[in-house]
Amino acid sequence: MAEAKHLESKKKSQLDRLLNFSDGVFAIAITLLIIEITVPAIPKLTDAELWKHLSQMTLKFMGFLISFAVVGYYQLVHHRIFGYVQRSNAKLLWINLGFLLTVVFLPFSSGLLSQYGSELQMKIPYAVYVFNMVAAALMNAYLWKTVSDPKENLLTHNISQARIRLGMYRTAVMPVVFLISFLASFIFPFWARFIPLLIPFIFKYGMKGLERKADLHEKPIDEEEQEEED
Amino acid sequence: MAEAKHLESKKKSQLDRLLNFSDGVFAIAITLLIIEITVPAIPKLTDAELWKHLSQMTLKFMGFLISFAVVGYYQLVHHRIFGYVQRSNAKLLWINLGFLLTVVFLPFSSGLLSQYGSELQMKIPYAVYVFNMVAAALMNAYLWKTVSDPKENLLTHNISQARIRLGMYRTAVMPVVFLISFLASFIFPFWARFIPLLIPFIFKYGMKGLERKADLHEKPIDEEEQEEED
Amino acid sequence: MAEAKHLESKKKSQLDRLLNFSDGVFAIAITLLIIEITVPAIPKLTDAELWKHLSQMTLKFMGFLISFAVVGYYQLVHHRIFGYVQRSNAKLLWINLGFLLTVVFLPFSSGLLSQYGSELQMKIPYAVYVFNMVAAALMNAYLWKTVSDPKENLLTHNISQARIRLGMYRTAVMPVVFLISFLASFIFPFWARFIPLLIPFIFKYGMKGLERKADLHEKPIDEEEQEEED
Amino acid sequence: MAEAKHLESKKKSQLDRLLNFSDGVFAIAITLLIIEITVPAIPKLTDAELWKHLSQMTLKFMGFLISFAVVGYYQLVHHRIFGYVQRSNAKLLWINLGFLLTVVFLPFSSGLLSQYGSELQMKIPYAVYVFNMVAAALMNAYLWKTVSDPKENLLTHNISQARIRLGMYRTAVMPVVFLISFLASFIFPFWARFIPLLIPFIFKYGMKGLERKADLHEKPIDEEEQEEED
Repeated sequence: MAEAKHLESKKKSQLDRLLNFSDGVFAIAITLLIIEITVPAIPKLTDAELWKHLSQMTLKFMGFLISFAVVGYYQLVHHRIFGYVQRSNAKLLWINLGFLLTVVFLPFSSGLLSQYGSELQMKIPYAVYVFNMVAAALMNAYLWKTVSDPKENLLTHNISQARIRLGMYRTAVMPVVFLISFLASFIFPFWARFIPLLIPFIFKYGMKGLERKADLHEKPIDEEEQEEED
Repeated sequence: MAEAKHLESKKKSQLDRLLNFSDGVFAIAITLLIIEITVPAIPKLTDAELWKHLSQMTLKFMGFLISFAVVGYYQLVHHRIFGYVQRSNAKLLWINLGFLLTVVFLPFSSGLLSQYGSELQMKIPYAVYVFNMVAAALMNAYLWKTVSDPKENLLTHNISQARIRLGMYRTAVMPVVFLISFLASFIFPFWARFIPLLIPFIFKYGMKGLERKADLHEKPIDEEEQEEED
Repeated sequence: MAEAKHLESKKKSQLDRLLNFSDGVFAIAITLLIIEITVPAIPKLTDAELWKHLSQMTLKFMGFLISFAVVGYYQLVHHRIFGYVQRSNAKLLWINLGFLLTVVFLPFSSGLLSQYGSELQMKIPYAVYVFNMVAAALMNAYLWKTVSDPKENLLTHNISQARIRLGMYRTAVMPVVFLISFLASFIFPFWARFIPLLIPFIFKYGMKGLERKADLHEKPIDEEEQEEED
Repeated sequence: MAEAKHLESKKKSQLDRLLNFSDGVFAIAITLLIIEITVPAIPKLTDAELWKHLSQMTLKFMGFLISFAVVGYYQLVHHRIFGYVQRSNAKLLWINLGFLLTVVFLPFSSGLLSQYGSELQMKIPYAVYVFNMVAAALMNAYLWKTVSDPKENLLTHNISQARIRLGMYRTAVMPVVFLISFLASFIFPFWARFIPLLIPFIFKYGMKGLERKADLHEKPIDEEEQEEED
């Protein structure tokens, strides 16, 4: 598909629309999660009865929180990636749409997990959830690869190879940990589920070396900014 | 209806609101699609049982994907059309609303198709879907006609007749192919459904001549931009 | 409530947020309408059966279209009113919220009308709908009164008394016609429902005098703009 | 997590995205409230019957209005807080997400209250609602504390300690009043529910001293603005 011949001054607002649309999808996906959690209908109007019903919904609440965190996380990543982007093109629009597809799908797979995930003999619910995570990460990586490719000419400024690689490694953390957790679930069905709780720590402490490298290679460009932040 | 007398400097933000509103509608329409896909309730808690139920939902997943692609496609087209627009007026607002109406309706007609579309003896589900496609394309064409009309004075810069015609031909691709597919479905009920898969190829390879023409006629205006892109 | 002491340069983006939020509400309200229209479950998989069920949904489709047009109309009015606004304050935010409340409620009252509106012996469904229309119009008028009040200091430029009055008359059209239609429905239960179809014509032809007056009083201010439009 | 190295000129649009996303969540949360209010199915098609069913929904309508006001209030507070913010960082994004979590949850807890709140012997529904209010206020306070902390370097201009404290006291009003109301409900189950109606008056009249102080300390900075407002 040939690119439209929009005025150069319009390109900025075209990118804004892509971001607006994406933020809309994230906002809706994250808010729709509460719809699944319906007020329980209780036969006897007592606190004890209501408490019993609310307790049975614990997994639903957990599922809601997980989905909320994951959609929120991907909104932040989208935020970070497009912070480097200056213009959009048709290719970027389609890849972005593919990424949003995996986000829009998350409520379903985490709903499946929250409903059947406590049946540890069943492997499919967790498999679907892990599959969705991997698909989101792959699209995320494809998005970052396209954005950071100098040939696409989408960036606001040159970014170092070290930073590009850092972005790729970050993208890999979630699916790799989830896949390990999934494989481990065949041996330790219960405890394997807790492995993903390591993810925030890996993000916080496990990438120090790469981050230092990425910062190192960009010092000259960001010096001014650096100073402001200190 | 007489135009409001807004300050010239406000016109830009008026157009922004039209786009924001439209992107909101696209974002919601595309995200709402997942609501229809509910987690199946299974009587026996085994993987085999869940797999059986998920398999029966294949058509639902297909319908979800089709709707997602179509809404996404029209968001991109909206994006491209308004990339040429500098200001809005009441007429444009109403036509845009009419176009959004056909988009908001897509979840219903593709829901109908995904639920009954596999019953090849039934013609109505596909007819409703094709009808919605044609309506969307007609509104799309009306939108492009209004935007590209120099008399409406909505454009950022003059665009060639060749480009206007290219936009019209593009608009026609989807409804024409769907209508052919619908007519063919009376003879080959099964295979006729695969005809729309040709659409991406027609967009990619079938408009080369027209695109070259459109580019040719605008060379002088976009020269500067051209160079940047190469 | 005391006003926050934001930087003058921030005021513009504060207004943008009010508009973004409002457009979000309009976009969601207008898109949610399709959720009510569910794909019918049919007992026998034939076109005749499906057609029968779709025909019974005619009133639902009508209700969907009415709501769509009304929400769309109010989005356009909001659009026009805020085209004159330069800054927001706490009072404007609350009045705007009150206006949005009446918009968010429209899906319910038009849902009620579409479900029971064909039972002409029942007056409540139409009464609720008309009441919602009147409430929306009152909030609309209050919004316009606040915005156009020079003392509030919200406007981008001085607008004539004639234009302010034009805005008020426009606001009155919908509720007055609906109230007449409601009263008439006690005498002609069926035909009274068609009276609101006059509304577009009143907007198009019934305000010529007022519009000329409003234009007349603002000639000097908008001269430059005028020329561009011709 | 190391900060991304975005261009300084991009920082503004990054903040815009955070606000867009948040406004989207607010807009959806506030509009979704109407979904819970479904058109009643009545067995006999008479006004009397419909009226009876609508009357039984009074508590639902009340719940809708309360939720609408609360979500609207928090949107306004978010609006006011971010009116002081110039840039975002990863920490702010996560705290904001935490705040939005409490907002997204409000429809559920006010749904619970509207459904079982009239059973005064039950304490859980009101407890859940009050708990949600307290959680929202705590996140709100955390957000304000982070934003107003000079060390975070997020502000557009220096704001006085008095104004920071004013923000904190404001934040405390809602949860404190709700907690008092909750405790009082063990003694006066019915009347205790009306205590929160005092909240608007406390906001309007109960903070005069603090507001004067906050204004006093910032006079020199805002003098120019002050004059424009008078």
